[in-house]
Amino acid sequence: MKVAFIGAGRWAIALAIKLAEKKIRIALYDTDTRKLEQLNASRRHPDLPETVLLPETIVLSPDPELVLEQATIVVFATPSALLVEAANTIKPLIPKTAQALVSVSKGIEPKTCRRLSVALQTIIPAPPVVVLAGPAIPYDMVQGDPTSLVAVSENEAAAQQIRDLFTISNLRIYHHTDVVGVEIAAAFKNVIAIAAGISDGLGLGLNAKAALLTRGLAEITRLGLALNANPLTFSGLAGMGDLIVTAFSPHSRNHQLGLILSKGKEFPSAQAELTGVAEGAITAFAGRELALKMHVEMPITEEIYRILYQGTKPSESIERLLNRPLKREFY
Amino acid sequence: MKVAFIGAGRWAIALAIKLAEKKIRIALYDTDTRKLEQLNASRRHPDLPETVLLPETIVLSPDPELVLEQATIVVFATPSALLVEAANTIKPLIPKTAQALVSVSKGIEPKTCRRLSVALQTIIPAPPVVVLAGPAIPYDMVQGDPTSLVAVSENEAAAQQIRDLFTISNLRIYHHTDVVGVEIAAAFKNVIAIAAGISDGLGLGLNAKAALLTRGLAEITRLGLALNANPLTFSGLAGMGDLIVTAFSPHSRNHQLGLILSKGKEFPSAQAELTGVAEGAITAFAGRELALKMHVEMPITEEIYRILYQGTKPSESIERLLNRPLKREFY
Repeated sequence: MKVAFIGAGRWAIALAIKLAEKKIRIALYDTDTRKLEQLNASRRHPDLPETVLLPETIVLSPDPELVLEQATIVVFATPSALLVEAANTIKPLIPKTAQALVSVSKGIEPKTCRRLSVALQTIIPAPPVVVLAGPAIPYDMVQGDPTSLVAVSENEAAAQQIRDLFTISNLRIYHHTDVVGVEIAAAFKNVIAIAAGISDGLGLGLNAKAALLTRGLAEITRLGLALNANPLTFSGLAGMGDLIVTAFSPHSRNHQLGLILSKGKEFPSAQAELTGVAEGAITAFAGRELALKMHVEMPITEEIYRILYQGTKPSESIERLLNRPLKREFY
Repeated sequence: MKVAFIGAGRWAIALAIKLAEKKIRIALYDTDTRKLEQLNASRRHPDLPETVLLPETIVLSPDPELVLEQATIVVFATPSALLVEAANTIKPLIPKTAQALVSVSKGIEPKTCRRLSVALQTIIPAPPVVVLAGPAIPYDMVQGDPTSLVAVSENEAAAQQIRDLFTISNLRIYHHTDVVGVEIAAAFKNVIAIAAGISDGLGLGLNAKAALLTRGLAEITRLGLALNANPLTFSGLAGMGDLIVTAFSPHSRNHQLGLILSKGKEFPSAQAELTGVAEGAITAFAGRELALKMHVEMPITEEIYRILYQGTKPSESIERLLNRPLKREFY
């Protein structure tokens, strides 16, 4: 058994550290050679706890052939904007014996508004794609905090295989088959987390934040239902669970982006203050396109789009969200 | 228009303070004369911000006749265990012209395992009952933080009337008709908040807490569906919204109770450290009975029951919850 990661960001590193407990072969590929050099020198990721080191058995390399050689499982962990390019590079190198592709990226493919697993499987038609998502701040997970995720695939056997592979000590995986629901929830929760960061930055309090998260999950669910997702997914680990974590953790980049925006700084100078990509900013663009195409009303996503790309003031957007006409809660 | 409150606890006082902005007549009844004397002397509730005072126009009295005289709306805000007794006392005093009863109490009636609005409407068959619930920490609401609630009734016109009555500046009310869902969610979220407090007290981190809240909402939803509630209610303001607020606010007594229990203190000496009733402790008893009767599996509620009433160690319960066999997320 060998697991190859495409992308060596914080989440890939955290999953690799957990997997290393199982004594299997692990290799990570990244195009950013400077990052790889730093990781190889320090054996730690700057966003993870200082005491958590990468085991020496984990290979980090800019050579995709080396990383993919004999890989049984290929985990795609790139930023959403780089996934298509990475898949095209990797495609000819995937061993015939590989059993599953895993996507842990979160977002909507910016050029085509497709879900990431669809973009991936279109380029690499086999083996099956499994999406791994749920409430997990990498910092907390690698410390050994109990963490629960979901592994989902249209191929249920593949989902079960990935569930069992990633069930390691305090990391527990459930499985189901609603890929659409999980990917929509995983992408859009980052947009709502930006809104939660703005709400926190403006000092609106916990009642407002809880209402915002609830209305946020409602608009995500509306889009999901339009795309034939299972409504239960949105109140599950990848829906409500991940939304809570992303909106409350001080380690969430999307929440941090919201805090910075609330202080009056404009995107993209706000983005520049972060240590990595705030995926919600891309989803606010690509995901909004998808919502428009599906004729689904997503008022919070729309306001985050206006703040990021049209220079609307955060306080003005929040005001508009609060002053929507009174109506039935569900529509 | 006159609004009479039965019970002068923190939530009743907070709602009365908001209503007073509308310049309508407001009176509160309570059997605890010492509490009323203190409130009348200080014009503030000890659990609300120091700067927020009860307007002089609000009457606080131990005389139910005085409070109910000419009341248009009667709001029941007693602890769940006292609701039946209060309803029996109040029944002969309700004016024929009263337009609605409102229940803001949260719990399951301990003697009969009925929902509170059912217990209330059985004793007082008219006017219609409207349940008001949702994500609202009273402390934050009276400070003017934006707050959203739901008003629900089988009588939609009554729900709309209460929606419009309580829509005041930053307090916004939605309405619908799923009384079963809202009352089940409102009662059981307090049990899950005790579990969240234990998780926080044991230092299990945000990933575990988010998973616990998600699994908690899942078991609440299972019970609700067995009772013919609308599944959407559980991902709405009274479900997910209120659960988030109660599990994260430092002002939540149920969360506080969980924190104290996690330090090894046993219930009821833990309860004695709180400034009021932690309703979740009663719901863990009465609600568990209801779940058993309906043959619905509620593992978190079951563990909280064991901790409170059978002396089980919190760490042992959490361990058991985390080690449940791997399976599909939804079942």
